[in-house]
This record gives sequence, C-alpha cells and structure tokens, in this order.
Amino acid sequence: MSNGKRHFLDTFFYPESVAVVGASRNPGTVNFHLTGNLVKLKFAGRVYPVNPNAEEILGLKAYPDLMSIEDEIDLAVVSVPAAKTPDIVRECVAKKVKGVVLTAGGFSEIGTKGREVQSEMKRLLRENGIRATGPNSLSPINSRNNFIVSFGPVEKLPQGYLSFIFQSGLYEPRFNWLLTGFHLYLSKLLDLGNKMDVNECDALEYLGQDPETRVIAMHLESVAGDGRKFAQLLKEITREKPVIVLKSGRTEAGARAASSHTGAIMRSSDVVIDALLKQCGAIRVLGLEEFFDLAKAFEYLPPLKGNRVAVTTLPGGEAVITTDFCQIYGLVMARPTAESHASLRAISPPWDIPPNPFDMGVSSQFHPETDSYRVFVDALADDQNVDCFAIHLGGWRHRSGQFAETFSRVIKQGKPLVVWTADPRDNGGLIEELESHRIPVYPSAGRAIRALAALYHYHSRREGRVD
Amino acid sequence: MSNGKRHFLDTFFYPESVAVVGASRNPGTVNFHLTGNLVKLKFAGRVYPVNPNAEEILGLKAYPDLMSIEDEIDLAVVSVPAAKTPDIVRECVAKKVKGVVLTAGGFSEIGTKGREVQSEMKRLLRENGIRATGPNSLSPINSRNNFIVSFGPVEKLPQGYLSFIFQSGLYEPRFNWLLTGFHLYLSKLLDLGNKMDVNECDALEYLGQDPETRVIAMHLESVAGDGRKFAQLLKEITREKPVIVLKSGRTEAGARAASSHTGAIMRSSDVVIDALLKQCGAIRVLGLEEFFDLAKAFEYLPPLKGNRVAVTTLPGGEAVITTDFCQIYGLVMARPTAESHASLRAISPPWDIPPNPFDMGVSSQFHPETDSYRVFVDALADDQNVDCFAIHLGGWRHRSGQFAETFSRVIKQGKPLVVWTADPRDNGGLIEELESHRIPVYPSAGRAIRALAALYHYHSRREGRVD
Repeated sequence: MSNGKRHFLDTFFYPESVAVVGASRNPGTVNFHLTGNLVKLKFAGRVYPVNPNAEEILGLKAYPDLMSIEDEIDLAVVSVPAAKTPDIVRECVAKKVKGVVLTAGGFSEIGTKGREVQSEMKRLLRENGIRATGPNSLSPINSRNNFIVSFGPVEKLPQGYLSFIFQSGLYEPRFNWLLTGFHLYLSKLLDLGNKMDVNECDALEYLGQDPETRVIAMHLESVAGDGRKFAQLLKEITREKPVIVLKSGRTEAGARAASSHTGAIMRSSDVVIDALLKQCGAIRVLGLEEFFDLAKAFEYLPPLKGNRVAVTTLPGGEAVITTDFCQIYGLVMARPTAESHASLRAISPPWDIPPNPFDMGVSSQFHPETDSYRVFVDALADDQNVDCFAIHLGGWRHRSGQFAETFSRVIKQGKPLVVWTADPRDNGGLIEELESHRIPVYPSAGRAIRALAALYHYHSRREGRVD
Repeated sequence: MSNGKRHFLDTFFYPESVAVVGASRNPGTVNFHLTGNLVKLKFAGRVYPVNPNAEEILGLKAYPDLMSIEDEIDLAVVSVPAAKTPDIVRECVAKKVKGVVLTAGGFSEIGTKGREVQSEMKRLLRENGIRATGPNSLSPINSRNNFIVSFGPVEKLPQGYLSFIFQSGLYEPRFNWLLTGFHLYLSKLLDLGNKMDVNECDALEYLGQDPETRVIAMHLESVAGDGRKFAQLLKEITREKPVIVLKSGRTEAGARAASSHTGAIMRSSDVVIDALLKQCGAIRVLGLEEFFDLAKAFEYLPPLKGNRVAVTTLPGGEAVITTDFCQIYGLVMARPTAESHASLRAISPPWDIPPNPFDMGVSSQFHPETDSYRVFVDALADDQNVDCFAIHLGGWRHRSGQFAETFSRVIKQGKPLVVWTADPRDNGGLIEELESHRIPVYPSAGRAIRALAALYHYHSRREGRVD
C-alpha cells in the first residue's frame, strides 16, 4: 500500500504462507492447477497442499488437514465441493488463518438453502475476524509475486499496471490468451464470486491506492448495498486512474441469468447504474471485446490531450471507413500544417493527395522502396495540429523491423498511436513485436478508433475540458 | 446465367482468353501476381502476358503488345501507370477485346485533369462497344474457374456461394486471411473502383441472377445516378438473397475522404441512403468486421425462422453477457419444454439449474467425463420452443472431435447454430474443423449473437413476419 498501512487485501495478494485445501496430484483435474501454477510460476511464498490421500504433490509435502501444518497460514485456498466447504471453513477458524478463498459454487446462487449455508459461513468468519473472497470465485492473481489461484494451467504472468476485478471466473477460459496472445500486462486480479464478504468496494479501495495499478478494469453483475460507497470510491479513483466497467445483466433477461449465476440481485435498474457510472467518470463498455480492447489501450498509452487524429491506411478504401468511425466515436481528422503536408510529398504520387487521411496504398505504388510509414509518422510527429495517430498496416509491403522503433518513439513523445492489421494471425510476429513495445494492435479500424476515442474522452473529462 | 442468356459480365468472370498488360517477371512487384496467381491457381483459360521486355513469364510466352497476340482476347487486364493507360485502351480498341479491367489509380479521384482523361477513355470504349471495370480497381475474382486479378499472392480460392462487390481494393490486404483464416467460401468478387463504366447496378444484376451466388456482400462509397435502378434491383434481389451493405463515407468527414479515394461524390445524404437500404431489405453494417461476420453467417447457415435461442457458456458469467446481447439484438431466450429440461438433469449439478442459458461451467465440474455439449444440444435439438443455438466453447475441457459432428447435425435439421471461443488463435485446429463443416465460430458473444440476429431479422422480413 502506498500509505504504508496494510490493507486487509494484502493478505490475499501477498500471502507469505498459503494452504491449498483440495490440492490434487491428477493433472486431468482443475484442482491440480491450483498447486501446479504456483510451482511452475515459482510463487515466492510457502505453499502447503492439503490432501488426506497424498504424501506429496509436485515435490511439496502434502498435509491431511489444515491443523497438521506447523506453520502459520496467511491464506487458505479452499477448493472442495460446496457440501464440504463449511467444514473446512470451521477448520480455517480453528487454524486462525488470516484470509480464506472459497472456490466452490452451490451457495447463494442456487436458492434459499444455499443462501442459508453461505450466511452461516459468513457469520462464523466475521466473528473470528477472518476475511473471505467468494464463494464461487477464482482468484487472486498477482504478477508481482506470481501468486495465482486458477483452475487452468497458466503459462506466464507478464508484469504491467492493469488490474482486474471480476464477479466470476468469466476471464478464465481466455486468460492465457489475454496474456500471451492479446498481450495484456497484468498487475492484479480479484474475482468476487458471490461476494459473501469481500466486494467491489474493498477491491476498488485497494487497487485505487495500489501504486502497481494504473488502470482498473471491472466486471460486475450487481452492485453491493445502496451503491453510495461504490459511487464515492469510483469518483475518487477515476480522477487518477481510468476505471473500465463491464456491468452485465444490464437487460432484464441478463439480470435473470445473473441471479442464477452468482446470486446477484438487480437492486437498481440499469438506467440508474448507467447514470451512476457516467457521473463517477467510469468508462462503461458493452461486451468483453470492448472491455479488453480499452484495458489494453489505457495500460499501453500515455494520456491523450486532444481529439485530432492523423490516419493512414493501406489501401485507401480503409481510410473512408476509418474516417466514419472517427466521427462516430468523437475524434476529428487533424489538419496538418502546410509544412507537414509538404514533407508528405516525398511519399505522394505525382498528383497531390490529402495529407490526412493519407492513402498509403497509392503512396506505396509510387514509392515501393521507401519506408513510407516512417516518413508519414515523422512528418506529423511534431505537428501541433496532430494529437494522436491511427495507422493501418495492410498486409503486403511491410518493411521489416522498423515499425516498433518508429512508432514507439512517437508514443514516448506523448502522442498515443493505435495500429490495426488486416490479418490477425500475426504471421511473422509483427503484432507481438509491436505490442512488446506497448504499441496496441487491433484487428479492425472500428476497434482501434473506439479504443483511441475512449482514451481521449477519459482524459478530456479528467482535465475538465468540455467533452 | 440462369436464364441461358449471356450477361456482359460473363466476359469478366468467365473469360476464355486473357491478356495481362503490364505483367512482370519480378516477384517483388505487385504486377508479378497478376500472372502468378493465374498460373499458381491453374486458371482454366488462355493467358497472354504482355511485356515488351520479356520473352516469357512464368513459363508463358510474353508479347510485346496486344496486337502481337494471334488469339482473340476476351478480357484485357490493363495494369500500367495512369499516364500510359489511355494508350493501352486505344490498343484494346484496335485489338477488339470484349472487356477491359483498368487497375491504375490517378483518374477521377485526383481532380479535373484526371476526370477528363477518364471521360475520354469512357467515350472511346463505349463507342466501340467495349465494357470496362475501374479504373482504380482490382478484380474480378471467380472461384469456379480460378480467374483472379490481384496484386498480392493468393493461396487458394475455397468455393462457396458468397459473392462480393467492392468499390475499392479494400479487401485485398486481408484477402488471404478471409479465405484461409476466417474461412469464407467464395463465389465471385468484383471491385468497381472509380465506376467509369461498370457500376454496382451491373454487378447486382449479374449476381442476383447467378445460381452460384446465394449471398451478396457489397461495399460502396457512393451510389450511381439517382439510385432508382439500384433500389429496384435491391428490392428484387433481397427477396431471394441476403444483400449485406457496407456503405462507407457515411459521415461528412468520411464522404470527403471517399471523394479523394475513388472520386465518389455523395449525391444523397446518409439518412437517405440508410432509408433506401432499409426499405429495400438490405442489411446495413457499420464496419468491415460486421460485414465479414454477417457474410459468413449467411453463407454458412440455413434460414432462421424464429428468434428463440438456446445458449450455453463455459463459464456461466459469459451467459449473463450473452443474454444481454440477445436482448439488445432482438433475440429471446428460448423456454425449453419440461421434457428438455428433464434431459438436462443428466449434466446438471446436484441442484436444479435453469435450462437456458445453461451454465456449462458448473455442469463440467460435476460431470467432467461427460460430453456435456452433446447432451445439451441433443436435449434441445427437437424442442419446438427452440429456433437456434448460441454456444460458447470456453478453453479447458474440450472433448476432442465430437463438436463438428454434433453441431452440424443440428444445422442440417434446420436450426442455425453459432459458436464463439475464448481464444481466437485456434490452437489445435478446432475452429478450422468447425468451419470446414460450415459451423461459424466468432471470437466473442457480441459478434456471434449479432450475426445470428441478422439472420433472424432478414428471414423474418422476407417471410413478412412482424419484426
């Protein structure tokens, strides 16, 4: 924590000793990966698998129960069926663990009986001063110490400044892809599940103050309580950090689906939630694609101070579509200075073409040997009429290797730049190279411009400009 | 042509003899691929490269000029700079070719001078009864005989029933990916460019009657003339075939960009175009992503007769988001019969869960050895309350090989089915396998549901149901 005081969630993100109750030796089970990921990713803390039928799991001594562990336990990850979970919770109390993670589903989301059992666990833990995430949740994850609770094998945790709050294990099937294919750079992740104890306000409070978190992306199915604390926190945090919110269950049908999923009850209509999010400066998105697209843009890019964008595409037809998207999302075509326009003559056809959007298709026909993208970007990088760049890399005629260097130079000068390509397969590793330099690459003009515009609108609001 | 009469565009799609003026031997040039693709893909017709500096190109005898070719020429592909193009057009007249493809840019899109040269070419060709596509265009392409005019190397042309009309080479950088990565199955493609002669009405007229075209996807930057013929054609064709339209230059800024690109002049405001498209039953899309997504759904899937969808996701949180998208796009959650609900108990947890949307996450925890997707689909395939399926395949726990067989059985029974996955990298070739069976796979719930809903709205309108 930045203020030196310890927040109770430090126990969840930086545990020094972790017991994994329900750890499995069988690589075909989801519980195998609870221990497997900690070993593979070299989590720095002490790990104690608990399994009455095993002596050893992945080289670690296994224990028949929590009480047999000689060490003090910061965090108990409890991954046993719902029916057995209350017993283990009682063991956690006896062992005096500091925090509990409950993964099992089958509580408040299944009706009256489940709600009762959940309430009883809540009461018991609260009386003993033990905090808990879940039930029906999968987390925490922290890239700084490689602490991870996950049912799937995770390959690596690339370090960055993006932190996630989820209300379910929604992220999990795509988690490896998000990190190694979509190239998100992670700080922390917390899944709230049924929110028996720890809720989005706790998570926001923690991540709002976390110096290793610069962008928060939050998925919710419900808002806890009357929403006042949530609104207050959001308002404070969004002054310093962008908060991207995917609130699902926004339609009536969706809300019904949510109630059987995490027991989320829609206390406020979506219109109210929407107004609250807007008023508090949060960035609301509709689906997961937009959620991750914006998370990437905000984590990668510097603040965007104006909405005047310089665009180039190959071929030119793409520029027309891109221009439409700019207007739709609230960006305007920059009007480069006469000097910049003159510099572009070096990559123009024999006739004069508009400097923006610039048609790289016709350019490349007349200057096949020139690194036209570099000329374009260099010509406009210092132009006081240009705030940011949107660049389409269109398949054939890619000069090798220069893009990352050219583009990241512009970003370091403080001008955000987004790229999109026509072939998302990343043959040749171009996308990987660009994104390793924090140059975001999208698969379409629409998604690239939407992300860039979100950046503009956030910073515009934060700095009190008319939007 | 279905009526036995020849349409003039047959010369463009089924030429028996083709001259390639500007053919190059240098694989580093775009003109190399004009001949290269015809040779590689084994175009059935006779090909005559024209190049005064070559004896032979890719094993084909080269000619110094058109007149030196002994054969009659159906189609002359003219790919020389704008300045030389009028000379070659005069040669085409002397040679009495039937059709001309003009690839060069630098005519009406560059201003008065270019417009004059273009008009003069148009007059000359018209006087001699020769039809022409372009200038500033790249096509035709026909998967039935592997006739292709393209500046990039094309790997293969998978045969199907989807035909494209473009107003520019917009498609080209992503063309290989669309065919081999995105798995579109192609019939024909025509790029109109500056529309000096052949325009969207000619193309629509031809493809509307083409028995090998079942879906038309059309990109336009402008509408020729007063739009009456266009509207009439659209209205007729959409009664039988879906027509997906991406009209770019829809915003003022976009229209300005279009005029410098293909010389397109916005004669009508976008509001007028939008009303016209709607009235004529066309399906208007905003960007290329939606354009290709819908093209795929319409080419792959049978008609969708109702809007009641059965959904399953892994994990359950995805179902909430999906339900939101269904409501937003106009689909409703099907209410399966009690019998179907009972069948789902075999893959339910110990407590009762809603049959739709069905939480495959909780299911798979309790039935790890069961092919739960098959049970789900089989339980609902004959349910009279279910019109279609939307299925999320979420990463871990994929049973091998059974999906394609199970899902395509449902589609063959007449119930459209869309799939989305959490990892678009297609590790393991699952997406490729599904799409080889015409089961469309999308990278997100939003895009899958949007495509399915488009199918419903089109067929609903066509059959005169209230929409």
